[in-house]
Amino acid sequence: MAKPNGIYIYGMQPVIEALSDAPQSCIAIYTESSPKEARFEHIRAAARKLKIPVNSAPDKKLKELVGDVNHQGVVALLKEFPYQDFTDWLGTLDLEQKPAVLLLDEIQDPHNLGAIIRSAAALGISGILLSKDRQVQVNSTVFKTSAGSALKIPVIQIGNINQTLELMKQKGFWIAGIDMYGEQTLWNEEFTTPMVFIIGNEGKGIGEKTLEKCDMRLSIPMSENVDSLNVSVAAALVSYEWARQQNK
Amino acid sequence: MAKPNGIYIYGMQPVIEALSDAPQSCIAIYTESSPKEARFEHIRAAARKLKIPVNSAPDKKLKELVGDVNHQGVVALLKEFPYQDFTDWLGTLDLEQKPAVLLLDEIQDPHNLGAIIRSAAALGISGILLSKDRQVQVNSTVFKTSAGSALKIPVIQIGNINQTLELMKQKGFWIAGIDMYGEQTLWNEEFTTPMVFIIGNEGKGIGEKTLEKCDMRLSIPMSENVDSLNVSVAAALVSYEWARQQNK
Repeated sequence: MAKPNGIYIYGMQPVIEALSDAPQSCIAIYTESSPKEARFEHIRAAARKLKIPVNSAPDKKLKELVGDVNHQGVVALLKEFPYQDFTDWLGTLDLEQKPAVLLLDEIQDPHNLGAIIRSAAALGISGILLSKDRQVQVNSTVFKTSAGSALKIPVIQIGNINQTLELMKQKGFWIAGIDMYGEQTLWNEEFTTPMVFIIGNEGKGIGEKTLEKCDMRLSIPMSENVDSLNVSVAAALVSYEWARQQNK
Repeated sequence: MAKPNGIYIYGMQPVIEALSDAPQSCIAIYTESSPKEARFEHIRAAARKLKIPVNSAPDKKLKELVGDVNHQGVVALLKEFPYQDFTDWLGTLDLEQKPAVLLLDEIQDPHNLGAIIRSAAALGISGILLSKDRQVQVNSTVFKTSAGSALKIPVIQIGNINQTLELMKQKGFWIAGIDMYGEQTLWNEEFTTPMVFIIGNEGKGIGEKTLEKCDMRLSIPMSENVDSLNVSVAAALVSYEWARQQNK
Protein backbone atom coordinates (compact mmCIF):
# COMPACT_ATOMS: atom_id res chain seq x y z
CA MET A 1 0.00 0.00 0.00
CA ALA A 2 1.78 3.14 -1.19
CA LYS A 3 1.37 6.17 1.05
CA PRO A 4 -0.49 8.90 -0.87
CA ASN A 5 -0.13 12.55 0.08
CA GLY A 6 -2.41 13.86 2.77
CA ILE A 7 -2.70 13.34 6.49
CA TYR A 8 -3.42 10.12 8.31
CA ILE A 9 -5.46 10.26 11.47
CA TYR A 10 -6.40 7.28 13.63
CA GLY A 11 -8.64 6.20 16.47
CA MET A 12 -12.42 5.72 16.59
CA GLN A 13 -13.34 9.19 17.86
CA PRO A 14 -11.02 11.21 15.57
CA VAL A 15 -12.23 9.27 12.49
CA ILE A 16 -15.90 9.65 13.47
CA GLU A 17 -15.33 13.38 14.02
CA ALA A 18 -13.53 13.77 10.69
CA LEU A 19 -16.42 12.08 8.88
CA SER A 20 -18.99 14.32 10.55
CA ASP A 21 -17.08 17.63 10.68
CA ALA A 22 -14.86 17.48 7.59
CA PRO A 23 -16.43 14.97 5.17
CA GLN A 24 -15.10 16.83 2.16
CA SER A 25 -11.53 16.21 3.40
CA CYS A 26 -11.89 12.42 3.74
CA ILE A 27 -10.32 10.40 0.94
CA ALA A 28 -10.42 6.90 2.42
CA ILE A 29 -10.97 4.87 5.58
CA TYR A 30 -8.99 1.78 6.55
CA THR A 31 -10.42 -0.61 9.13
CA GLU A 32 -8.76 -3.59 10.67
CA SER A 33 -9.84 -6.95 9.25
CA SER A 34 -11.55 -8.54 12.19
CA PRO A 35 -14.56 -10.73 12.89
CA LYS A 36 -15.86 -8.09 15.34
CA GLU A 37 -16.71 -5.67 12.59
CA ALA A 38 -19.78 -4.37 14.45
CA ARG A 39 -17.62 -1.77 16.16
CA PHE A 40 -16.99 -0.15 12.75
CA GLU A 41 -20.69 -0.16 11.87
CA HIS A 42 -21.14 3.55 12.51
CA ILE A 43 -18.03 4.51 10.55
CA ARG A 44 -18.92 2.23 7.62
CA ALA A 45 -22.44 3.63 7.42
CA ALA A 46 -21.24 7.25 7.52
CA ALA A 47 -18.56 6.57 4.89
CA ARG A 48 -21.03 4.74 2.62
CA LYS A 49 -23.38 7.74 2.74
CA LEU A 50 -20.51 10.06 1.80
CA LYS A 51 -19.22 7.65 -0.89
CA ILE A 52 -15.86 7.40 0.84
CA PRO A 53 -14.22 4.01 0.24
CA VAL A 54 -13.64 1.79 3.30
CA ASN A 55 -10.76 -0.66 2.89
CA SER A 56 -10.01 -3.61 5.15
CA ALA A 57 -6.41 -3.80 6.27
CA PRO A 58 -4.58 -5.96 8.81
CA ASP A 59 -2.95 -4.34 11.84
CA LYS A 60 0.44 -4.56 10.11
CA LYS A 61 -0.79 -2.40 7.22
CA LEU A 62 -2.37 0.14 9.57
CA LYS A 63 0.95 0.40 11.42
CA GLU A 64 2.67 1.07 8.09
CA LEU A 65 0.35 4.05 7.68
CA VAL A 66 0.45 5.56 11.16
CA GLY A 67 3.27 3.88 13.05
CA ASP A 68 3.15 1.93 16.28
CA VAL A 69 0.25 3.72 17.95
CA ASN A 70 -3.07 2.72 19.49
CA HIS A 71 -5.06 3.13 16.27
CA GLN A 72 -8.10 1.20 17.61
CA GLY A 73 -8.38 -0.56 14.27
CA VAL A 74 -9.23 2.48 12.19
CA VAL A 75 -7.30 5.01 10.13
CA ALA A 76 -8.58 7.79 7.86
CA LEU A 77 -6.71 9.50 5.08
CA LEU A 78 -7.64 13.17 4.77
CA LYS A 79 -6.76 15.47 1.87
CA GLU A 80 -5.82 18.11 4.41
CA PHE A 81 -6.24 18.80 8.09
CA PRO A 82 -9.69 20.25 8.94
CA TYR A 83 -8.62 23.70 10.12
CA GLN A 84 -11.36 25.89 11.51
CA ASP A 85 -12.32 29.18 9.91
CA PHE A 86 -10.94 32.15 11.84
CA THR A 87 -14.13 34.25 11.80
CA ASP A 88 -16.42 31.33 12.69
CA TRP A 89 -14.10 30.29 15.50
CA LEU A 90 -13.81 33.83 16.90
CA GLY A 91 -17.60 34.00 16.94
CA THR A 92 -17.82 30.92 19.16
CA LEU A 93 -15.56 32.34 21.88
CA ASP A 94 -17.20 33.61 25.04
CA LEU A 95 -15.03 36.63 25.83
CA GLU A 96 -16.65 36.97 29.28
CA GLN A 97 -14.88 33.70 30.14
CA LYS A 98 -11.52 35.34 29.34
CA PRO A 99 -10.29 32.64 26.99
CA ALA A 100 -6.65 32.21 26.02
CA VAL A 101 -5.28 31.27 22.63
CA LEU A 102 -1.79 30.47 21.38
CA LEU A 103 -0.42 32.08 18.25
CA LEU A 104 2.59 30.30 16.75
CA ASP A 105 5.17 32.38 14.93
CA GLU A 106 7.18 30.16 12.57
CA ILE A 107 7.44 26.92 14.52
CA GLN A 108 9.43 24.55 12.30
CA ASP A 109 9.51 21.16 14.01
CA PRO A 110 6.40 18.97 13.64
CA HIS A 111 7.15 17.30 17.02
CA ASN A 112 7.15 20.71 18.69
CA LEU A 113 3.85 21.64 17.03
CA GLY A 114 2.28 18.32 18.06
CA ALA A 115 3.53 18.71 21.64
CA ILE A 116 2.24 22.31 21.85
CA ILE A 117 -1.21 21.25 20.60
CA ARG A 118 -1.36 18.34 23.09
CA SER A 119 -0.48 20.47 26.13
CA ALA A 120 -2.71 23.37 25.05
CA ALA A 121 -5.70 21.03 24.59
CA ALA A 122 -5.10 19.45 28.01
CA LEU A 123 -4.79 22.81 29.76
CA GLY A 124 -7.94 24.39 28.35
CA ILE A 125 -6.57 26.76 25.71
CA SER A 126 -9.34 27.82 23.28
CA GLY A 127 -7.45 27.66 20.00
CA ILE A 128 -4.14 27.46 18.18
CA LEU A 129 -3.49 30.08 15.51
CA LEU A 130 -0.80 29.36 12.99
CA SER A 131 0.44 31.26 9.99
CA LYS A 132 -0.08 29.66 6.57
CA ASP A 133 3.52 30.51 5.66
CA ARG A 134 6.96 29.78 7.13
CA GLN A 135 5.35 27.56 9.76
CA VAL A 136 4.93 23.78 9.89
CA GLN A 137 1.30 22.80 9.26
CA VAL A 138 -0.65 19.91 10.84
CA ASN A 139 0.55 16.73 9.13
CA SER A 140 0.55 13.05 10.12
CA THR A 141 3.58 13.50 12.41
CA VAL A 142 1.96 16.44 14.17
CA PHE A 143 -1.32 14.56 14.63
CA LYS A 144 0.55 11.60 16.10
CA THR A 145 2.75 13.72 18.41
CA SER A 146 -0.38 15.51 19.60
CA ALA A 147 -1.71 12.08 20.70
CA GLY A 148 -4.84 12.83 18.68
CA SER A 149 -5.43 16.16 20.45
CA ALA A 150 -5.19 18.09 17.17
CA LEU A 151 -8.87 17.24 16.63
CA LYS A 152 -9.84 18.21 20.20
CA ILE A 153 -8.86 21.88 20.05
CA PRO A 154 -9.58 24.36 17.25
CA VAL A 155 -6.57 24.85 14.99
CA ILE A 156 -6.85 27.90 12.74
CA GLN A 157 -4.68 28.98 9.82
CA ILE A 158 -4.16 32.73 9.55
CA GLY A 159 -2.86 34.81 6.67
CA ASN A 160 -1.08 37.66 8.36
CA ILE A 161 0.00 37.52 12.00
CA ASN A 162 0.09 41.25 12.64
CA GLN A 163 -3.33 41.94 11.07
CA THR A 164 -4.78 39.06 13.11
CA LEU A 165 -3.31 40.55 16.29
CA GLU A 166 -4.86 43.95 15.51
CA LEU A 167 -8.25 42.31 15.09
CA MET A 168 -7.90 40.36 18.32
CA LYS A 169 -6.90 43.55 20.18
CA GLN A 170 -10.07 45.20 18.92
CA LYS A 171 -12.03 42.27 20.37
CA GLY A 172 -10.49 42.87 23.79
CA PHE A 173 -7.58 40.43 23.75
CA TRP A 174 -4.28 41.37 25.31
CA ILE A 175 -1.18 40.17 23.50
CA ALA A 176 1.69 38.53 25.41
CA GLY A 177 4.88 37.45 23.68
CA ILE A 178 6.86 34.64 25.30
CA ASP A 179 10.37 35.98 25.02
CA MET A 180 13.42 34.84 26.95
CA TYR A 181 14.62 38.47 27.03
CA GLY A 182 11.22 39.76 28.19
CA GLU A 183 11.26 42.22 31.08
CA GLN A 184 8.23 40.69 32.83
CA THR A 185 8.22 37.33 34.57
CA LEU A 186 5.49 34.88 33.58
CA TRP A 187 4.54 34.05 37.17
CA ASN A 188 4.24 37.71 38.19
CA GLU A 189 1.63 38.65 35.58
CA GLU A 190 -2.08 38.50 36.27
CA PHE A 191 -4.23 37.57 33.30
CA THR A 192 -7.55 39.35 33.71
CA THR A 193 -8.54 39.76 30.05
CA PRO A 194 -8.83 37.45 27.03
CA MET A 195 -5.22 36.56 26.13
CA VAL A 196 -3.19 35.77 23.04
CA PHE A 197 0.13 34.13 23.92
CA ILE A 198 2.67 34.24 21.10
CA ILE A 199 5.21 31.43 20.86
CA GLY A 200 8.16 32.20 18.60
CA ASN A 201 10.42 30.22 16.31
CA GLU A 202 12.73 27.59 17.88
CA GLY A 203 15.89 29.51 17.02
CA LYS A 204 15.17 33.19 16.53
CA GLY A 205 12.08 33.64 18.73
CA ILE A 206 9.29 36.06 17.87
CA GLY A 207 9.70 38.32 14.81
CA GLU A 208 10.49 41.96 15.55
CA LYS A 209 7.32 43.45 14.05
CA THR A 210 5.20 40.96 15.97
CA LEU A 211 7.03 41.75 19.22
CA GLU A 212 6.07 45.41 18.71
CA LYS A 213 2.39 44.40 18.83
CA CYS A 214 2.80 42.80 22.26
CA ASP A 215 1.28 44.41 25.34
CA MET A 216 3.75 42.45 27.43
CA ARG A 217 6.86 40.34 26.90
CA LEU A 218 6.98 37.46 29.33
CA SER A 219 10.09 35.51 30.23
CA ILE A 220 10.48 32.34 32.24
CA PRO A 221 13.31 32.75 34.76
CA MET A 222 16.07 30.20 34.22
CA SER A 223 19.12 28.92 36.06
CA GLU A 224 22.52 30.23 35.14
CA ASN A 225 24.36 28.36 32.35
CA VAL A 226 21.13 27.02 30.90
CA ASP A 227 20.34 28.60 27.55
CA SER A 228 16.70 28.01 27.03
CA LEU A 229 13.68 25.80 27.38
CA ASN A 230 12.35 23.81 24.49
CA VAL A 231 9.67 25.88 22.73
CA SER A 232 6.97 23.26 23.37
CA VAL A 233 7.82 23.33 27.09
CA ALA A 234 7.63 27.14 27.13
CA ALA A 235 4.17 26.88 25.50
CA ALA A 236 3.08 24.31 28.10
CA LEU A 237 4.30 26.50 30.98
CA VAL A 238 2.42 29.59 29.79
CA SER A 239 -0.71 27.48 29.24
CA TYR A 240 -0.30 26.06 32.76
CA GLU A 241 0.20 29.49 34.35
CA TRP A 242 -2.92 30.79 32.61
CA ALA A 243 -4.96 27.70 33.68
CA ARG A 244 -3.67 27.99 37.27
CA GLN A 245 -4.82 31.61 37.50
CA GLN A 246 -8.25 30.82 35.99
CA ASN A 247 -8.79 28.14 38.63
CA LYS A 248 -7.71 30.19 41.63
CA MET B 1 34.83 6.03 11.59
CA ALA B 2 32.82 3.23 13.23
CA LYS B 3 30.73 4.24 16.22
CA PRO B 4 32.03 2.42 19.31
CA ASN B 5 29.78 1.86 22.35
CA GLY B 6 29.64 4.62 24.91
CA ILE B 7 28.16 8.08 24.99
CA TYR B 8 29.07 11.01 22.77
CA ILE B 9 28.94 14.46 24.24
CA TYR B 10 29.73 17.69 22.39
CA GLY B 11 30.42 21.37 22.87
CA MET B 12 33.41 23.13 24.43
CA GLN B 13 32.06 23.42 27.97
CA PRO B 14 30.68 19.86 28.28
CA VAL B 15 33.95 18.38 26.97
CA ILE B 16 36.08 20.55 29.28
CA GLU B 17 33.88 19.53 32.22
CA ALA B 18 34.03 15.86 31.31
CA LEU B 19 37.86 16.02 31.18
CA SER B 20 38.06 17.71 34.55
CA ASP B 21 35.22 15.94 36.40
CA ALA B 22 35.17 12.48 34.85
CA PRO B 23 38.61 11.89 33.29
CA GLN B 24 38.39 8.15 33.92
CA SER B 25 35.29 8.00 31.67
CA CYS B 26 36.92 9.71 28.66
CA ILE B 27 37.97 7.38 25.87
CA ALA B 28 38.69 9.84 23.07
CA ILE B 29 38.30 13.43 21.93
CA TYR B 30 37.53 14.52 18.37
CA THR B 31 38.25 18.07 17.30
CA GLU B 32 37.39 19.75 14.03
CA SER B 33 40.32 20.08 11.63
CA SER B 34 40.79 23.80 11.44
CA PRO B 35 43.58 26.32 11.16
CA LYS B 36 42.26 28.05 14.31
CA GLU B 37 43.35 25.23 16.55
CA ALA B 38 44.18 27.61 19.39
CA ARG B 39 40.62 27.33 20.66
CA PHE B 40 41.20 23.65 21.41
CA GLU B 41 44.49 24.37 23.23
CA HIS B 42 43.00 23.84 26.70
CA ILE B 43 41.25 20.62 25.71
CA ARG B 44 44.35 19.23 23.96
CA ALA B 45 46.56 20.00 26.95
CA ALA B 46 44.15 18.39 29.41
CA ALA B 47 43.73 15.31 27.20
CA ARG B 48 47.51 14.95 26.71
CA LYS B 49 48.02 15.00 30.48
CA LEU B 50 45.40 12.27 30.91
CA LYS B 51 46.78 10.27 27.93
CA ILE B 52 43.42 10.50 26.15
CA PRO B 53 43.83 10.47 22.35
CA VAL B 54 42.73 13.58 20.44
CA ASN B 55 41.73 12.93 16.83
CA SER B 56 41.18 15.53 14.15
CA ALA B 57 37.95 15.10 12.24
CA PRO B 58 36.15 17.27 9.70
CA ASP B 59 32.71 18.67 10.51
CA LYS B 60 31.10 15.92 8.42
CA LYS B 61 32.63 13.21 10.63
CA LEU B 62 31.61 15.00 13.82
CA LYS B 63 28.05 15.18 12.51
CA GLU B 64 28.17 11.43 11.89
CA LEU B 65 28.96 11.00 15.59
CA VAL B 66 26.49 13.43 17.16
CA GLY B 67 24.03 14.48 14.46
CA ASP B 68 23.27 17.93 13.17
CA VAL B 69 23.91 19.90 16.36
CA ASN B 70 26.02 22.88 17.34
CA HIS B 71 29.03 20.79 18.40
CA GLN B 72 31.41 23.79 18.45
CA GLY B 73 34.06 21.65 16.77
CA VAL B 74 34.56 19.20 19.61
CA VAL B 75 33.12 15.81 20.58
CA ALA B 76 34.14 13.46 23.39
CA LEU B 77 33.47 9.75 23.62
CA LEU B 78 32.84 8.64 27.21
CA LYS B 79 32.76 5.04 28.43
CA GLU B 80 29.68 5.95 30.44
CA PHE B 81 27.84 9.02 31.60
CA PRO B 82 29.44 10.64 34.69
CA TYR B 83 26.66 10.03 37.20
CA GLN B 84 27.14 11.59 40.61
CA ASP B 85 27.39 9.49 43.73
CA PHE B 86 24.16 9.57 45.75
CA THR B 87 25.76 10.12 49.18
CA ASP B 88 28.21 12.76 47.95
CA TRP B 89 25.42 14.59 46.15
CA LEU B 90 23.07 14.46 49.15
CA GLY B 91 25.87 15.97 51.25
CA THR B 92 26.13 18.98 48.95
CA LEU B 93 22.44 19.93 49.26
CA ASP B 94 21.55 22.86 51.51
CA LEU B 95 18.30 21.64 53.04
CA GLU B 96 17.61 25.11 54.49
CA GLN B 97 17.13 26.24 50.90
CA LYS B 98 14.34 23.66 50.49
CA PRO B 99 15.69 22.09 47.32
CA ALA B 100 13.60 19.95 44.99
CA VAL B 101 14.67 16.83 43.14
CA LEU B 102 12.98 14.65 40.54
CA LEU B 103 12.90 10.89 40.91
CA LEU B 104 12.10 9.00 37.71
CA ASP B 105 10.25 5.71 37.98
CA GLU B 106 10.82 3.65 34.82
CA ILE B 107 10.91 6.32 32.12
CA GLN B 108 11.48 4.44 28.85
CA ASP B 109 11.88 7.01 26.09
CA PRO B 110 15.31 8.68 25.79
CA HIS B 111 13.68 11.81 24.31
CA ASN B 112 11.45 12.10 27.38
CA LEU B 113 14.46 11.68 29.69
CA GLY B 114 16.45 14.31 27.79
CA ALA B 115 13.51 16.73 27.83
CA ILE B 116 12.94 16.20 31.57
CA ILE B 117 16.63 16.88 32.31
CA ARG B 118 16.62 20.04 30.16
CA SER B 119 13.54 21.55 31.83
CA ALA B 120 14.64 20.55 35.34
CA ALA B 121 18.08 22.14 34.83
CA ALA B 122 16.50 25.35 33.52
CA LEU B 123 14.01 25.58 36.40
CA GLY B 124 16.50 25.10 39.22
CA ILE B 125 15.87 21.49 40.28
CA SER B 126 18.80 20.16 42.36
CA GLY B 127 19.13 16.67 40.93
CA ILE B 128 17.62 13.87 38.87
CA LEU B 129 17.45 10.44 40.52
CA LEU B 130 16.99 7.46 38.27
CA SER B 131 16.82 3.78 38.95
CA LYS B 132 19.60 1.59 37.51
CA ASP B 133 16.99 -0.89 36.30
CA ARG B 134 13.92 -0.77 34.06
CA GLN B 135 14.68 2.87 33.25
CA VAL B 136 16.44 4.44 30.27
CA GLN B 137 19.91 5.69 31.23
CA VAL B 138 21.75 8.77 29.94
CA ASN B 139 22.99 7.92 26.43
CA SER B 140 23.94 10.00 23.39
CA THR B 141 20.29 10.60 22.44
CA VAL B 142 19.45 11.75 25.97
CA PHE B 143 22.46 14.09 26.10
CA LYS B 144 21.45 15.60 22.76
CA THR B 145 17.75 15.97 23.66
CA SER B 146 18.80 17.63 26.91
CA ALA B 147 20.60 20.25 24.77
CA GLY B 148 23.73 19.52 26.81
CA SER B 149 21.95 20.13 30.13
CA ALA B 150 22.67 16.59 31.35
CA LEU B 151 26.09 17.90 32.47
CA LYS B 152 24.60 20.99 34.11
CA ILE B 153 22.47 19.22 36.74
CA PRO B 154 23.47 16.28 38.95
CA VAL B 155 22.14 12.99 37.59
CA ILE B 156 22.29 10.15 40.11
CA GLN B 157 21.69 6.42 39.63
CA ILE B 158 19.94 4.74 42.53
CA GLY B 159 19.60 1.06 43.36
CA ASN B 160 16.24 0.82 45.04
CA ILE B 161 13.62 3.56 44.72
CA ASN B 162 11.72 2.79 47.92
CA GLN B 163 14.85 2.59 50.10
CA THR B 164 16.05 5.88 48.59
CA LEU B 165 12.72 7.50 49.42
CA GLU B 166 12.94 6.29 53.04
CA LEU B 167 16.39 7.83 53.33
CA MET B 168 15.25 11.11 51.81
CA LYS B 169 12.26 11.22 54.18
CA GLN B 170 14.66 10.86 57.11
CA LYS B 171 16.56 13.87 55.76
CA GLY B 172 13.39 15.96 55.83
CA PHE B 173 12.19 15.60 52.24
CA TRP B 174 8.49 15.30 51.51
CA ILE B 175 7.55 12.93 48.71
CA ALA B 176 5.04 13.97 46.04
CA GLY B 177 3.94 11.60 43.29
CA ILE B 178 2.72 13.14 40.05
CA ASP B 179 -0.34 11.05 39.35
CA MET B 180 -3.20 11.89 37.01
CA TYR B 181 -5.58 10.25 39.49
CA GLY B 182 -4.11 12.14 42.45
CA GLU B 183 -6.60 13.75 44.78
CA GLN B 184 -4.59 16.96 45.23
CA THR B 185 -4.14 19.60 42.56
CA LEU B 186 -0.59 20.67 41.77
CA TRP B 187 -1.37 24.38 41.91
CA ASN B 188 -3.13 24.13 45.28
CA GLU B 189 -0.17 22.63 47.17
CA GLU B 190 2.35 24.73 49.02
CA PHE B 191 5.89 23.39 49.02
CA THR B 192 7.48 24.46 52.28
CA THR B 193 9.96 21.59 52.78
CA PRO B 194 12.65 19.91 50.68
CA MET B 195 10.73 18.01 47.98
CA VAL B 196 11.08 14.83 45.95
CA PHE B 197 8.76 14.81 42.93
CA ILE B 198 8.23 11.35 41.45
CA ILE B 199 7.55 11.09 37.73
CA GLY B 200 6.15 7.73 36.64
CA ASN B 201 6.40 5.56 33.56
CA GLU B 202 4.89 6.86 30.29
CA GLY B 203 2.13 4.23 30.22
CA LYS B 204 1.49 2.86 33.68
CA GLY B 205 2.51 5.81 35.88
CA ILE B 206 4.14 5.36 39.28
CA GLY B 207 4.48 1.83 40.69
CA GLU B 208 2.04 0.91 43.46
CA LYS B 209 4.64 0.38 46.22
CA THR B 210 6.25 3.70 45.36
CA LEU B 211 2.87 5.48 45.41
CA GLU B 212 2.42 4.19 48.99
CA LYS B 213 5.55 6.10 50.01
CA CYS B 214 4.13 9.39 48.78
CA ASP B 215 3.06 12.08 51.25
CA MET B 216 0.89 13.54 48.51
CA ARG B 217 -0.35 12.59 45.06
CA LEU B 218 -0.56 15.58 42.79
CA SER B 219 -2.60 15.77 39.62
CA ILE B 220 -2.66 18.40 36.92
CA PRO B 221 -6.27 19.29 36.06
CA MET B 222 -7.07 18.59 32.44
CA SER B 223 -9.82 19.37 29.96
CA GLU B 224 -12.46 16.76 29.24
CA ASN B 225 -11.68 14.30 26.44
CA VAL B 226 -7.93 14.79 26.81
CA ASP B 227 -6.24 11.72 28.20
CA SER B 228 -2.98 12.95 29.53
CA LEU B 229 0.00 15.19 29.23
CA ASN B 230 3.31 13.92 27.93
CA VAL B 231 5.42 12.80 30.89
CA SER B 232 8.19 15.31 30.11
CA VAL B 233 5.61 18.12 30.10
CA ALA B 234 4.21 16.93 33.45
CA ALA B 235 7.78 17.01 34.85
CA ALA B 236 8.30 20.53 33.47
CA LEU B 237 5.02 21.75 34.99
CA VAL B 238 5.82 20.45 38.47
CA SER B 239 9.33 21.95 38.23
CA TYR B 240 7.78 25.25 37.16
CA GLU B 241 5.20 25.23 39.98
CA TRP B 242 7.95 24.57 42.51
CA ALA B 243 10.17 27.34 41.03
CA ARG B 244 7.25 29.78 40.97
CA GLN B 245 6.55 29.22 44.66
CA GLN B 246 10.23 29.56 45.60
CA ASN B 247 10.34 32.94 43.87
CA LYS B 248 7.19 34.38 45.37
